[in-house]
Amino acid sequence: MSTPESQPTSEDAASVSKKAAKKEAAKQEKLRRRQEQEALAAATRSLAVDDEQDPLAANYGDVPLNEIQSKTVEDVSRWTEVGALTNTSENRSVLIRGRAQTIRAVGKNMAFVVVRERGFTVQCVATVQPDTVSRQMVKYVAGLSRESIIDIEGVVSVPSVEIKGTTQQVEVQVRKLYCVSKAAVLPINIEDAARSDAEIEKALQAGEKLVRVNQDTRLNNRVLDFRTPANQGIFRIQSQVGTIFRQFLLSEGFFEIHTPKLIAGSSEGGAAVFRLDYKGQPACLAQSPQLHKQMAICGDFGRVFEIGGVYRAEDSYTHRHLCEFIGLDVEMEIKSHYSEVMDIVGRLFVTIFDTLNKTCEKELEAVGRQYPFEPLKYLPETLRLTFEEGIQMLKDAGIEVDPMGDLNTEAERKLGQLVLEKYGTEFYILHRYPLAVRPILYDALPR
Amino acid sequence: MSTPESQPTSEDAASVSKKAAKKEAAKQEKLRRRQEQEALAAATRSLAVDDEQDPLAANYGDVPLNEIQSKTVEDVSRWTEVGALTNTSENRSVLIRGRAQTIRAVGKNMAFVVVRERGFTVQCVATVQPDTVSRQMVKYVAGLSRESIIDIEGVVSVPSVEIKGTTQQVEVQVRKLYCVSKAAVLPINIEDAARSDAEIEKALQAGEKLVRVNQDTRLNNRVLDFRTPANQGIFRIQSQVGTIFRQFLLSEGFFEIHTPKLIAGSSEGGAAVFRLDYKGQPACLAQSPQLHKQMAICGDFGRVFEIGGVYRAEDSYTHRHLCEFIGLDVEMEIKSHYSEVMDIVGRLFVTIFDTLNKTCEKELEAVGRQYPFEPLKYLPETLRLTFEEGIQMLKDAGIEVDPMGDLNTEAERKLGQLVLEKYGTEFYILHRYPLAVRPILYDALPR
Repeated sequence: MSTPESQPTSEDAASVSKKAAKKEAAKQEKLRRRQEQEALAAATRSLAVDDEQDPLAANYGDVPLNEIQSKTVEDVSRWTEVGALTNTSENRSVLIRGRAQTIRAVGKNMAFVVVRERGFTVQCVATVQPDTVSRQMVKYVAGLSRESIIDIEGVVSVPSVEIKGTTQQVEVQVRKLYCVSKAAVLPINIEDAARSDAEIEKALQAGEKLVRVNQDTRLNNRVLDFRTPANQGIFRIQSQVGTIFRQFLLSEGFFEIHTPKLIAGSSEGGAAVFRLDYKGQPACLAQSPQLHKQMAICGDFGRVFEIGGVYRAEDSYTHRHLCEFIGLDVEMEIKSHYSEVMDIVGRLFVTIFDTLNKTCEKELEAVGRQYPFEPLKYLPETLRLTFEEGIQMLKDAGIEVDPMGDLNTEAERKLGQLVLEKYGTEFYILHRYPLAVRPILYDALPR
Repeated sequence: MSTPESQPTSEDAASVSKKAAKKEAAKQEKLRRRQEQEALAAATRSLAVDDEQDPLAANYGDVPLNEIQSKTVEDVSRWTEVGALTNTSENRSVLIRGRAQTIRAVGKNMAFVVVRERGFTVQCVATVQPDTVSRQMVKYVAGLSRESIIDIEGVVSVPSVEIKGTTQQVEVQVRKLYCVSKAAVLPINIEDAARSDAEIEKALQAGEKLVRVNQDTRLNNRVLDFRTPANQGIFRIQSQVGTIFRQFLLSEGFFEIHTPKLIAGSSEGGAAVFRLDYKGQPACLAQSPQLHKQMAICGDFGRVFEIGGVYRAEDSYTHRHLCEFIGLDVEMEIKSHYSEVMDIVGRLFVTIFDTLNKTCEKELEAVGRQYPFEPLKYLPETLRLTFEEGIQMLKDAGIEVDPMGDLNTEAERKLGQLVLEKYGTEFYILHRYPLAVRPILYDALPR
């Protein structure tokens, strides 16, 4: 916390008399000192929370903007990640940075702050102590706004009782606390946004009305909603799905392509496309990478995949977001039978499920706390059923389906239920659809 | 090679007299036999190349379309990849599938076919031999069209002299050869498309005029041009760049996001955007993921990256394709200094360069044969120069540049040359640009 200094003006005094120059210099010096004092006072006012003089004022306060701009290269290992704070850190002095998730004062001598960093939370306590924490500091801490970014220097302690509501089972005894970036009063509390419906219902039955954050408020404040443990988990799981998808396919001799999304004409007949003007020529957004994937195969790329945007202008009547989504696409040569594709697809999904369960345990748990779900049931070797077998299972259950027609959503759902009951899996491949429903494309061969 | 059979028509004969039914059946049977014989004769004609009867006709020929459709599940390990054929395969019988890149007959008893699979090529020889290869077969082989997909069963031999023009240093003595997919006469020969300008010039000086495939022909026949070793290399290297980029960033605590490209308004002020109609509302294509990346950081994602499409409607005056390209984007929180970003970026690029050199040696070589280039010169630790130092180097070399202005392309190129001479690297980071030229954004902090 340095105090800003005003620079003495260096005037060319050559044309002025020596005396006048001396007088002028003294005046300038006086002015400089007054400015310095004023600046110091202003800084002190901003650091301390009341007008009382605080000899420990240097231990807390708002960091001025010019201080957080890149000044000196610091060793970033000075900071300890909140997620790394365990009881092995006991009695160690640490420096952490995170958001003030909740702030609670207990009288005038103690204040609690839960600090959150990347989904991990830790409880920090500022208690009045002779040489480190003043009453003013506790008042300052109690006055922090939620979601402000703060730096805390403190000593790790391990309480004898379980700490509820934080991911880390240690406490930080605050020695210094600076606010790096002050948050305004926000329309969403992360705690509220992180609540499950079940929790709200349960509290309601016990006579307590908890805040429910509605979908429109979440979407209007997307950045704040991102900060819930569930959303932190969802986005990390999404990233991991892409990673597993790619790693599996790369290991099977595929490579990644990026096909154009801005194209002339429509990429598939029939469905509505987003049209746009490309410098006077009609263009549209690709509804599928199909054509370009097949070009890649005709071009002897052998096995390719793409993770990229897909654009569809159809009106959407379901809760699925159709107009823009990320497609995970695969295209491969086959030697002699389409079962070669089923083999890749079957193993690909099992690898994704297995690896997610292994590497995203915490993230799945975080999502499940807000949106409860059952773990996916699947077999180590993916079940394959023919369309005919599927139709037969539906018939046996008393559901009549056109053996030459497509399955509607309800029939698909019912079949899924029957398969789960009979084979114990929620994931299976249905193949040998009638030609009229799902034609197989032979475009991969040159003509 | 099965012969197509016509099915006898099963007519309901109940209403006809027994005699008439018998007569009708005999007539049908006769018709069926005649059709069968005709089909057999037609099949034989298509298999053999002339009318002479060939007892070895089963060893070669065109595979009929219905035969290449998925019939029985075969063990794909029956096929050996062309790239896997080495002298350790000597005397082994192999089955390979690939494109007939070049076909050459030597008299009536011998024909050569160079088979190419995923950029690897091998020479195959069909020589007349009593129990396997007939004269008709050699004629059939000699008559194959370039780029047709063929299956060859043969025995691997290792010639005593070097084989020029193929990647594999073995030969396959053909026993059986079937054409799986016949190519039409194509507008481009892959050999021609794969030639470097230098090769064409050299031949011209020696009095030989080689075919030069122009850019428009390449673009009009993109799928064929994909098959050159250089393009096979370029696309594989491109995939590998993405892979290294991701792996490095994942290992540094980043994760991958996919930001919307179909957005309301323009993502950056100023530059021209592609506008489109989104169900009656104005929309446009994202010119940059900047805003959404920053939302991710404000949402406490910490460190994110994206590989995705970028759309810019500005007129392009350079050879760079601006309207749609794949951007490799990174966004991260910093603790105290932007040097943390330079550290990541510096190590990221060195990792990409190092890993490409290690894992894409063959691909880089293939590209270099058609488009000669020097290996990139770079330092294990990326050089950092301040804008001021850069300006000084240009000044020292007699080039005057506005110290508060941006560097134009020519000045950048000149500086690159000076840096290469002084520090021996073509890759460096220039930082501390004047604020007016490259403002640093502080949007990652909540306000």
